[in-house]
Formats: sequence, structure tokens, C-alpha cells
Amino acid sequence: MVRLRDMGEKLAVREIAGMISPSAALGPGDDAAAVRLGDRFLVASTDMLWEGTHFHPRMSWWQKGWMAAAVNLSDMAAMGAQPIGLLLAMGLSPELEMDQVRDMVQGAADCCDVHSTEYLGGDTKECPQLVLTGTSLGLAPLDGLLRRKGARPGDLLMMTGTAGLAAAGLLALEKGIESPAAVKALFEPRPRVKEGTLLSSSGAVTSGMDTSDGLSMSLHELGQASGVGFRVEAVPLDPEVERIASLAGTDAMDIALHGGGDYQLLFTVRPEGLGTVLALLGADAAVIGTCVPGAGNTLKRDGGDEILEPKGYEHFRR
Amino acid sequence: MVRLRDMGEKLAVREIAGMISPSAALGPGDDAAAVRLGDRFLVASTDMLWEGTHFHPRMSWWQKGWMAAAVNLSDMAAMGAQPIGLLLAMGLSPELEMDQVRDMVQGAADCCDVHSTEYLGGDTKECPQLVLTGTSLGLAPLDGLLRRKGARPGDLLMMTGTAGLAAAGLLALEKGIESPAAVKALFEPRPRVKEGTLLSSSGAVTSGMDTSDGLSMSLHELGQASGVGFRVEAVPLDPEVERIASLAGTDAMDIALHGGGDYQLLFTVRPEGLGTVLALLGADAAVIGTCVPGAGNTLKRDGGDEILEPKGYEHFRR
Repeated sequence: MVRLRDMGEKLAVREIAGMISPSAALGPGDDAAAVRLGDRFLVASTDMLWEGTHFHPRMSWWQKGWMAAAVNLSDMAAMGAQPIGLLLAMGLSPELEMDQVRDMVQGAADCCDVHSTEYLGGDTKECPQLVLTGTSLGLAPLDGLLRRKGARPGDLLMMTGTAGLAAAGLLALEKGIESPAAVKALFEPRPRVKEGTLLSSSGAVTSGMDTSDGLSMSLHELGQASGVGFRVEAVPLDPEVERIASLAGTDAMDIALHGGGDYQLLFTVRPEGLGTVLALLGADAAVIGTCVPGAGNTLKRDGGDEILEPKGYEHFRR
Repeated sequence: MVRLRDMGEKLAVREIAGMISPSAALGPGDDAAAVRLGDRFLVASTDMLWEGTHFHPRMSWWQKGWMAAAVNLSDMAAMGAQPIGLLLAMGLSPELEMDQVRDMVQGAADCCDVHSTEYLGGDTKECPQLVLTGTSLGLAPLDGLLRRKGARPGDLLMMTGTAGLAAAGLLALEKGIESPAAVKALFEPRPRVKEGTLLSSSGAVTSGMDTSDGLSMSLHELGQASGVGFRVEAVPLDPEVERIASLAGTDAMDIALHGGGDYQLLFTVRPEGLGTVLALLGADAAVIGTCVPGAGNTLKRDGGDEILEPKGYEHFRR
């Protein structure tokens, strides 16, 4: 008898995914499913958030709604899809105040507005603890889907933004360090919707995903899907991550590598496409390494290369 | 300060729906949202089930998975859409056994198979109590969407199948009455997917929804959406409902009118379209009344007409 807490999330998900084999669709293993509809893909994804693991006690109701929308829209970004709508199913306690529910709905609606998509509707059910399940829908050109599989040795490894700001926000809250910017990054993630569609249109991206599970875990997943490794040479750090790490007496690079909650895009680019990608994304994207043959990732640090193990939060695991 | 338990589900949902106004889509108020994609509608719906209110302790894990898929596919049926896929987000306790999860996934997969649609993927998260949130996706012709609004006085009121079998199954379990058929109707609802698409193609249906909230509640909702009333003349009863009602010492018609969980289709038809609908659905559909001007529904019973009030389970309400 094997319980989920013995298996951990990753193994359980792999087992479940192995039972599902959609014939006409891009199935489990990516950030979203894709179904061909004529000359484009319908892209769809669902993400469930439960208050015990996803909502910090300091979050406002508006932020909870925003986050539920944002994490789902990030799956569209990760696939390079243009969002066309969001559904939100809410499990709510009867003790909740209607004003709190209204704030939460407004947060989700505002996140949809900012990312130019529609809050289409949802479901409202009774549940003793807050559960928000979003579903994002989007469209992508047949040749513009960003999949996890597809990176080849020689490709450049890139990411948007910086790594670790959300995790630094969590650390700041734990240690009582004042940092509105980092806490905002944690509570109000900004899915890279526009950047995802630009990358989709570039024709230069060979694989991609979001970094919600942390950079080292995402690198591991991306490499595994493509059967390649990565040599990471430079991880963009926000100065605020270094400031918080210093005050907390911990290593900024550890936060950037293994902390979750960032929702940046991590992707690989054919070398000859670098100019195109930089022209589209500007200074908001940077080369952080290269794709190499074989399995396993390394990090260039203090002169030498060290093994970069995937670390991060995993559901179920005890 | 107004809490959800003071408002009840219906009022809370109306408030939430009022905050959402998708511009390019058929918004809240129907069983699903619809977004125009070229020459057809993409139809999408999400339904959350939580073990405390939706899963009877006697249900098998396979049945829980089946039900999560079935209630979501029923929303496609209610809209007359051809399903193209299902997503399933699962909130799972770490104490669950992997075999139980496997059975549940298989139940959802089998329900998708039976209704010729794809189990596209989903999400797996930790949650102390079982929460299953499905999302169904489907397509409908631009002129073939079955909406709640559209019934006109003079239309015929029709439904598929019979009323009350699922609620009779719940009563049978409570009273220790043996009834495999009624319990199966309760635990393994059969969404009317094929019938929904046939009704969509008929061109004769003016409004429609499913009866998951019970017949009297569904009649109330359908009438309110269209600004009409219904005169119900004959409610199709399964003999098993009468047998269980008799053994339990209760009224079979009360079960049929106010019990939930049936997932039949309730719809209105232009009188001249009746032949078409009966030719498509055969003996599986029946005229149960007529659409009349004004608000409020009546039931023809024992010779006279009595007021038919909406009754049924409502979330949050205490």
C-alpha cells in the first residue's frame, strides 16, 4: 500500500499522466493541454490553490483572487498562447463575508483585465477551507506552441526577469524584514502573458515553461523533457534578493535557484534566433546558460562548475 | 457584515455574476460560458465537488472520478455542445493511497470514453479533504447553443428520461432499502451529451438546462431566465422511485420534483418542432407541460393546479 506522502507529487503526477493518453491532443507533461481546432491550437490548463499551501495569512482577499487568476494565466504564457478566458471555481466557507468574496472576485477580474482576457465565469461551492481552481483557455498558432520538449545541445538558455524575488518576499515575511517589493512579487505574481506570445511568434524558441516551481526544479523538468542538460552561467538577481538574503544571513543564489513563486519564463533559443528574441523582449530577457548533451545541470560559480540539483517544495512529500 | 450562510448560494452567485461582464462572450447565468471562435462557439464550464457535500461515503473511488467528469460533461449537454475535452484538478490528502487515486482517475477517464471525449489532463495538489474540480470544453454551432433564456409562452416543456431516481437512491441508502438501480443513478450519473447535441441540431429548442439541482429548482431558474412560467402537467416517474417512496412512506412526486442529482435535460420546444425533437430523441424525451405568460410555475395534480415552489439543496444556507 503506497500513500501519496510516500511517493511525493512528481512521481504521483507521472503515474496519473501515464493513465491518460489523449489521442487528438497534446497531453499531460506540459504546462497545459492543447487541442487542434482547425488552423490553431486551443490551449487549456487548470490549477488548484488551497489556502493551507498557497495562501499566506498576510495576503488580502483581492490578492488571493489575483493569484488564482495569475497562476493559471502563467500556464498560457508558458505555452506561448494568447489567453481568451478564465474560469474560476471557488470553494468557500459559509462563514466568509460577502465583502471578502467580492474582493477576491475583483482580484481575479483585475488580473484578467491587466492581461487583456475575459473572466468568463465559474462555480461557487461550499468547502470548509478556501479552494480556488482556475482554468485558463488560450489560442496558439500551430507552429507557435512552446513545449517543454524540444531543447537541443547548443541552444541558448534564457529567462525573463530575475529569479528569487518571490521567495525572498516569503523569507522577508518570516524574518520580519521590510520589503514591499518582494512581498508584492510573492502575493501578486505577474504572469508573462505578453512575453509568451512574443516568444511564440519569434520562431526561435525550441522549448519553454514557467518557473513557478523554482529555477532549479524548472531546469530539471525542462532538461528531462528534452533529454538534455543545462550549463547555467549567470542567474539574474534582483538587488532586493541580495539585500534580504544578507539581512537574513542566507545565500542569495540559493534563494534564486531553489525558491518558488516567480512565474518567469524559462526557455531555450536557437543561437541564430537570439537577435530576434532580444529585439522582441528587450532587456527583460537574458541568456543565463547553454544547453549541453547528456542529463543533469551544472552551475558556474566561483570559477568552477558545480552540480545543480533540483530542490524545491513538493506536494504530499513528508 | 453579511456572511455566505446568511445569503445562500443563489444570491451569492447572482452578486458574483453581476461583477463579471465578459464583453466577447456569453457570460454567467448559463450552465457554461461561450466564446465565439470563428464560425462556432467554444463552450467551457467548471464544476467543483467537495467530499463533504458531493461524495457519499458509500461511493467507490472509481465512482468519485466518474461523477466529477459526469457533472462537468452535463454542462456541455445542457448547452447543446459537443465535448472536446475534460480537465480535472484534484485536491488530495497525502494519506490517500495511490491505488485509490488510480481508481478515481480511471473513473473520470471511463466517463470521458463513454461520452467520446478526451481526458486532457489537470492538476494535482495537496488538500486535507478531497476536492475535484473539472472543466469541460466543447463546441457548438453559432445557431445551436441551448441557453436558459429563450422560452416563450406557448412553447412545450420537455425533459429527457425520468425525474427523481437519483434522489430516490439517496433515500434508499438512508432507509436501508435495497435498490441497485437507484443508487447507481445517484453515484454514476449519465450526462445527456448525445441528446444535447441532437437538441442543438434540431433547431426547435428555445431554452434548456440540466436538472442537477432538482426539477422544481430547474423550472424556477429556466422560467426566471426567460421571464415566463410553466404549467407542469405530467412528470415522468421511474417505477423504482414509486417503490422506494412507498417503502419509505413518502411521496414519489415530492422526490421527483425536489430531489437533485438527476442530470436530465429540461428544455422548451416550439410547438411545430415537437415532431423533429421526438424523431431525434424517441421515447427518451417527453412533453411534461407548457410555457405560460407571467412568473411562477404550477403543477396539475389531483385534478387541480397547485403552485410549484422551487425547493432543493442550496449551498451555504443554514
